Amino acid sequence: MREANKMTQTPTRIGLAGLAVMGQNLALNIAEKGFSISVYNRTTSKVDETVERAKVEGNLPLFGFHHPEAFVRSIQKPRVIIMLVKAGAPVDQTIETLSQYLEKGDCIVDGGNEWYENTERREKAMAEKGLLFLGMGVSGGEEGARNGPSLMPGGSFEAYKNIEDILLKVAAQVPDSGPCVTYIGKGGSGNFVKMVHNGIEYGDMQLIAEAYDVLKSVGKLTNEELKNVFEEWNKGELLSFLIEITADIFGIKDDKGEGYLVDKVLDKTGMKGTGKWTVQQAADLSVAAPTIAASLDSRFLSGLKEERVQAANVFKEGGFGDILTDQPIDKEKLINDVRQALYASKICSYAQGMNLIRAKSIEKGWDLKLGELARIWKGGCIIRAIFLDRIKRAYDRNAELSNLLVDPEFATEIIERQSAWRRVVCLAINSGISTPGMSTSLAYFDTYRRERLPANLVQAQRDYFGAHTYERTDVSGSFHTEWFKIAKSKI
Amino acid sequence: MREANKMTQTPTRIGLAGLAVMGQNLALNIAEKGFSISVYNRTTSKVDETVERAKVEGNLPLFGFHHPEAFVRSIQKPRVIIMLVKAGAPVDQTIETLSQYLEKGDCIVDGGNEWYENTERREKAMAEKGLLFLGMGVSGGEEGARNGPSLMPGGSFEAYKNIEDILLKVAAQVPDSGPCVTYIGKGGSGNFVKMVHNGIEYGDMQLIAEAYDVLKSVGKLTNEELKNVFEEWNKGELLSFLIEITADIFGIKDDKGEGYLVDKVLDKTGMKGTGKWTVQQAADLSVAAPTIAASLDSRFLSGLKEERVQAANVFKEGGFGDILTDQPIDKEKLINDVRQALYASKICSYAQGMNLIRAKSIEKGWDLKLGELARIWKGGCIIRAIFLDRIKRAYDRNAELSNLLVDPEFATEIIERQSAWRRVVCLAINSGISTPGMSTSLAYFDTYRRERLPANLVQAQRDYFGAHTYERTDVSGSFHTEWFKIAKSKI
Repeated sequence: MREANKMTQTPTRIGLAGLAVMGQNLALNIAEKGFSISVYNRTTSKVDETVERAKVEGNLPLFGFHHPEAFVRSIQKPRVIIMLVKAGAPVDQTIETLSQYLEKGDCIVDGGNEWYENTERREKAMAEKGLLFLGMGVSGGEEGARNGPSLMPGGSFEAYKNIEDILLKVAAQVPDSGPCVTYIGKGGSGNFVKMVHNGIEYGDMQLIAEAYDVLKSVGKLTNEELKNVFEEWNKGELLSFLIEITADIFGIKDDKGEGYLVDKVLDKTGMKGTGKWTVQQAADLSVAAPTIAASLDSRFLSGLKEERVQAANVFKEGGFGDILTDQPIDKEKLINDVRQALYASKICSYAQGMNLIRAKSIEKGWDLKLGELARIWKGGCIIRAIFLDRIKRAYDRNAELSNLLVDPEFATEIIERQSAWRRVVCLAINSGISTPGMSTSLAYFDTYRRERLPANLVQAQRDYFGAHTYERTDVSGSFHTEWFKIAKSKI
Repeated sequence: MREANKMTQTPTRIGLAGLAVMGQNLALNIAEKGFSISVYNRTTSKVDETVERAKVEGNLPLFGFHHPEAFVRSIQKPRVIIMLVKAGAPVDQTIETLSQYLEKGDCIVDGGNEWYENTERREKAMAEKGLLFLGMGVSGGEEGARNGPSLMPGGSFEAYKNIEDILLKVAAQVPDSGPCVTYIGKGGSGNFVKMVHNGIEYGDMQLIAEAYDVLKSVGKLTNEELKNVFEEWNKGELLSFLIEITADIFGIKDDKGEGYLVDKVLDKTGMKGTGKWTVQQAADLSVAAPTIAASLDSRFLSGLKEERVQAANVFKEGGFGDILTDQPIDKEKLINDVRQALYASKICSYAQGMNLIRAKSIEKGWDLKLGELARIWKGGCIIRAIFLDRIKRAYDRNAELSNLLVDPEFATEIIERQSAWRRVVCLAINSGISTPGMSTSLAYFDTYRRERLPANLVQAQRDYFGAHTYERTDVSGSFHTEWFKIAKSKI
């Protein structure tokens, strides 16, 4: 412990409280970039552990503290303390502990997956004490925190400026597009953008799982073949972290028995809160985000393993196999089709996420830059992908783009892939395989590109039973018809 | 006005405040059933209007009041006042106005589409003053209110008992299944059930719109043919209010020009809050409700008319027509297929809604009876249908049924219809028509009936990048693998 004699030393540049693995790794990352850092954790063994790691990982300028007051006082003014504790009540507790010792102009940065309104509430409460607050989305998991995460800081611009030099070095560095950090915007915008990022991540993972399912269940590909397919895909338009780790996963043998580990993993997916929030916010903002919603629903249904086993039995007796068809499949063509279906669906998913962010930005007056978000997601985070370059280009071409689908480059890509996309979804349907993400993406596309929808009937029904009125195609205004009277008078 | 001399008369049995059309109609319905009723509205012209209607519609025992105090005092104790005002702040204002004059044991019944938590908050606040409160869902629109709605009262059981005799007579009466009312449960359960009812209504309307779209856009049916199809459907398993009014709608000519009115109605669907709440609650409760969500999304996308027109243009240039194929269609076969697809999708939609209600019931300890809900929806409300008998039977057979899909009767029906269902969705996809409700219902079914989903891959990914651990198929416990290390050590 260097605590005792630290008080007389030069103050450190920044502090970090909350030393679970994410916090430890981010602190080490900051120290490694040459910024001296004080660290604190309520359970003091974590402090000692971090100090030890700092020694081992290169004698980094990291100083541990067992007491919050000494911790706070060790940091240069205006003080900035990054907090990496569990979202919710622990964040409030940590703020209370630390802010006793903070002085005007000092700042706390919450790096957790926090609900954006909590950040806005805290920023307000802090401001009343003359303190600054940032809600900073941190993506990339443990590995990203250590080696370069994608950072989404929102809140006080002044506070951001105080640590911009640190964040620019700590964030993932991507050649030709720079460090994966930018000032997101005011209030809870950093948390909100991170939340949607996670929703998009749900979408990506679901779409990959569906591609796997079709290739495995219909195409009868082995794990070895799947590994090769995903490795191949990772050389092209789908190049991304998630495709890369998927290829890795298919290559790993079970250490407890025969065969491959992926086949032994139970088909139940866990989740935290951000996917749910994304879907709820989409509903709140009247933005359709069906691909993200399908991913969430798939996680819910995956959890009903026992019910599914029972249902499979019920329908097996009714003549359903797990797979309905056993037609011969042209593997090469199928692989090629699935790649295109995955890519086209991915465009829809990102279109939904981006429009959700824009809708919130308008509601809150955040003035978020969608292209810049695509840029900072290019490295460090779970959804990092070459694909994000295209999104950045789309918004560079037209910052007001109403939907990614109508960007000329994406539109062309969809047109080229639409036949394959339709083939894959229909093949899945006829095989009894569900591809909720791909099929809902396709429905999203076919709805969005349709000049005339059957919504006229729904509105006529609403006017019939609820006098909700309707507009007309030929004359402007609001109309009501006594449908019931007219219909029944004819009889 | 009979107000002046009313004070000396026998007290009325019940009161009603809020005299927009719904309120007027419900008051007249109550009076017509022989219960004397006092009515009040802040805008007094509505009071006079209602009194006038009571005279014209049969000299009904309805008494109007311009002042809240006289209104309250005119009602027999313990007083019950039904309130039909706009949800939210107007409800709180009306409660404040009325409760000044209420006495211990009196009750207010909110008949609006209120958020269930508001009802619970108000019930608590009222209880502190010794007053009772009910949140009562009222379905059936203006016509239902006048001639027999479906009523979903929740909250104080004591208060329910005070007016049970009235509600039993006022509610819609269905032969062999009784009046469409039952005590739903405690707290905000009445509002919650009404909210999900509305979500299910969204689903029904969307599925009918998709059936219409496929028949019209792919099958090229005329409005006259559509009218005949829906009339025919209304004689069988699909017999319902919404199918009936849909047939009516196709028969109505445009009064402003040539052709049919439905073709002149703009394809933009409005909405109020309950569909959104249903989707958000589903996410909150970890219940998949994709059919209802697809209906909500379709309304959102219908609102983007200008964007859709623009998108249609972009993709037309890329070789997309509005309809992708122009294959000859066997109309009779198509009509038959679409009917089956609609029916099978409807089962999925109701399964989702019912499971949502059950999940909330468990969370809140409401002990809701799902079969009883199906029974009270059989008349009066928008989703009234012969179909609800089957749901009631399913829960009569097994109150603990995990999902309607695995009820023996429904399972058989789905098995019989599944080929048609798959044909319709694939036909739509290959025609470039979106059927988001039908395709997402099919995906729901194919996910639910699947013993093994590709969720193992998603969980493996989560463990790879976030150390979220996984379960195994063969051994119990929670496992973590160093996927990255193993994968990269091989290279």
